[in-house]
Order: sequence, then C-alpha cells, then structure tokens
Amino acid sequence: MAVARDRSATNASDEDGASEGKSPRTARGRKTLRAILDAAAVEFGEKGFHESSISGITTRAGVALGSFYTYFDSKDAVFRALVRDMSTQLRDHVTPLVQAAPDGIAAERIGLESFLEFVREHKEIYRIIDESEFVDYESYRHHYTTTVERIHQRLKAGAARGEIRADVGEIHAWAIGGMNVFLGLRFGLWDRESNPREVAAIANDLLARGLRP
Amino acid sequence: MAVARDRSATNASDEDGASEGKSPRTARGRKTLRAILDAAAVEFGEKGFHESSISGITTRAGVALGSFYTYFDSKDAVFRALVRDMSTQLRDHVTPLVQAAPDGIAAERIGLESFLEFVREHKEIYRIIDESEFVDYESYRHHYTTTVERIHQRLKAGAARGEIRADVGEIHAWAIGGMNVFLGLRFGLWDRESNPREVAAIANDLLARGLRP
Repeated sequence: MAVARDRSATNASDEDGASEGKSPRTARGRKTLRAILDAAAVEFGEKGFHESSISGITTRAGVALGSFYTYFDSKDAVFRALVRDMSTQLRDHVTPLVQAAPDGIAAERIGLESFLEFVREHKEIYRIIDESEFVDYESYRHHYTTTVERIHQRLKAGAARGEIRADVGEIHAWAIGGMNVFLGLRFGLWDRESNPREVAAIANDLLARGLRP
Repeated sequence: MAVARDRSATNASDEDGASEGKSPRTARGRKTLRAILDAAAVEFGEKGFHESSISGITTRAGVALGSFYTYFDSKDAVFRALVRDMSTQLRDHVTPLVQAAPDGIAAERIGLESFLEFVREHKEIYRIIDESEFVDYESYRHHYTTTVERIHQRLKAGAARGEIRADVGEIHAWAIGGMNVFLGLRFGLWDRESNPREVAAIANDLLARGLRP
C-alpha cells in the first residue's frame, strides 16, 4: 500500500537526520542526536534561523559543542535535519490515526483533526517549515510535496475501495493540503481554544459530498 | 454590500502605502511612490529582506535616495507598505471578476482562477507575503485575515441569496483560502504550464456540492 511504501522509503538510514557519514551508531548517540534536534526546534522556533546559534542549541540540549559536530556539519545542516524531522514527526503522528479510519472520507477528517492536535503540541512547526522557504528552498518544497503526496495516495486508495470519486487526483490533494495548513494556522496556532474535532467535522462536511463517487 | 464596504474602508488615505505623514500630494509624487513600491517588489522578491537595501530599491526605481525618504522612514517601512500593496493589488485584480460571477459557487471558481493568473504575473508574491511572517508578523496576519474575511463575506452574501448553505462560516472561508494559496503555489508558481481555468474548475467541483444549500 502506498502509505506503507512511503514510510519504508523515508525510514532509510538517512532518516535519523545526522549529516552524511555522521549517523549515530549507539543508543546513547541516538539519544544525543534526539536531544540536539529537540533543542534546535526550540532555538529556531523562538529566535528564527539568523538569530539562532549552534552554542544556543547545545546549551539548551545540555550537550558539549563537540557532540554537535559529531552529528552535524553546520547550523544549515541541523536546520535542514530539523525540517525533515518535523515532517517525519507529523507523518508519524497522523498516519496511524488515519490508517485506523473507517473509510476514505473519515480519513481526511481524522487527518485534519490530528494535524490540529499536532500543531497545538508543536507550535514552532509553522515558523520552522515556513522559514525553510528562505533558508533551504529544497527542504520547503520537499516537505509540502511529500505531505500532499501522502494525501494523494490516501485519496487514491479510497477511490480503489469505491469510497472516493474515481477521478480524484493531485489537484484535490493540494486543495486538501492547503485547507489543512490554513485551518491549522487559524484554529491550531492562533486560536488555541477551539475544538479540533469540531473544526475538522465542519471542514470535512464541506469536502465529503465533493469527494464521494 | 460587504465587498464594497471592505474596499471603501481600505481605500482610506493611508492606502497609498507611504509612512505616516508622508503621503504624496501630487500626481508626480504618486508616480514616484508607485515606482518605489514596484522596485521594492523586485528587490525583496529577488534578494529577500535581509539582503535587500534601500539603495538597491532606488537604483531599480531610477529615483534619488532622497525621494525614498520623502515617502518612507526605513527599509522596514517600505517592506510593510509592499505587503499591504501586494494584498491590495491582489484584491483589486480578483474583486471585479468575482463580483461579475453568475452565482456564489461560480464566484469561488473565478476567485481561484483569477488568483492563479495573478500569481503567474506576480511570482514574487509568495516570497514577499511569506517573508512578512519573519519581518513583520502583524503584516502577515493582516494579509491572511483580510483575504479570508473577503471570502467569508462573499460566502455569506451567496448564502443570503440562497445560493450557498445558510450555515456557511469562518471555517469554510479559511478552508477555501488555504486551498487557493496551495493551488497557487503548486499550479501558479511551480508549474506555470497548467491551465488556471482547468485547475479552478476541478477544485470548484470538489467544493460545489459541499457549499450548496
């Protein structure tokens, strides 16, 4: 199945995020790398790329400066790794919930609801992904292309099961992706009081009749 | 009508974009201000905010450095003015086309189609609006809030005419706004070959059944 293919492809050895040839080989190394990425999310999320520093990241992570260079070549490299890491975290949060959905239309409702919940828990995601447009355009494009491709594969799988219109395609996937990102900005990041389940139900009702065969 | 109210409100004296107390008083002054804003769109669009300079803008505009300070206080000020200006240009391109639509559902199709055409002609719009998230968050938020509010007013007007579901609201407007921005990125900015009319027709067909009463 498409979603599974996508997961295995990105679960390749480079997924840990370290610079080329710098992947950790021990559990302790992976823990240090994780601490650096989590600290980088806070540092870049609070200060933005230009004002952030490697020493700011290592101080927050509680690791020595040398440990940083064990895994990353530069500030650019850790930023690129962080964009991939946030993209992967988002995927890993959403995918199992979506896969448990009763049908293809409900999968899009659950996809949006779980995205809104993810944004509430990771409020730095917008700033980091959006800043990648200026720091490393390839990372920015990769994030949106792969995120929308997952929606596209989900829609096609729903169509194959007869739950979604047979002519569903890339335009529908980009439309849904954009809808989710804007609803996440408005009702996940800016307004933290609204109920993700209610927002997702209303948005899904707008789509449902247009998605059905 | 809501759209007309919105236009008159923002056509107030501060709409020319100059810094406070620096609005041009003559036709020649307005022409110089226009040249500075157009040059700023190219400078910021090509180099980004940090690498751009006031002298880069005045050189491109073919005006003296003193003329810049006649209308703007700083690089920040001209950037903020440019975000408002792009937002206004987009509104002025889309609004008359949307107002001529036969009904509320077609209005959303024409809104998207005309947005895709605008992106093709103003490829710097994404970079400039998106960079405002980092340069001046208030401008960023203002752009999206007012753009989505126009969609919301359009939907409510369609509901009042019985063409759109009576319970249409802000969530629907943000969903449509996000859809448009992502389709503009994918099919307006990245892929400049696809037909805006066809993209808009497919996206509108997805929405139509969910928007009807």
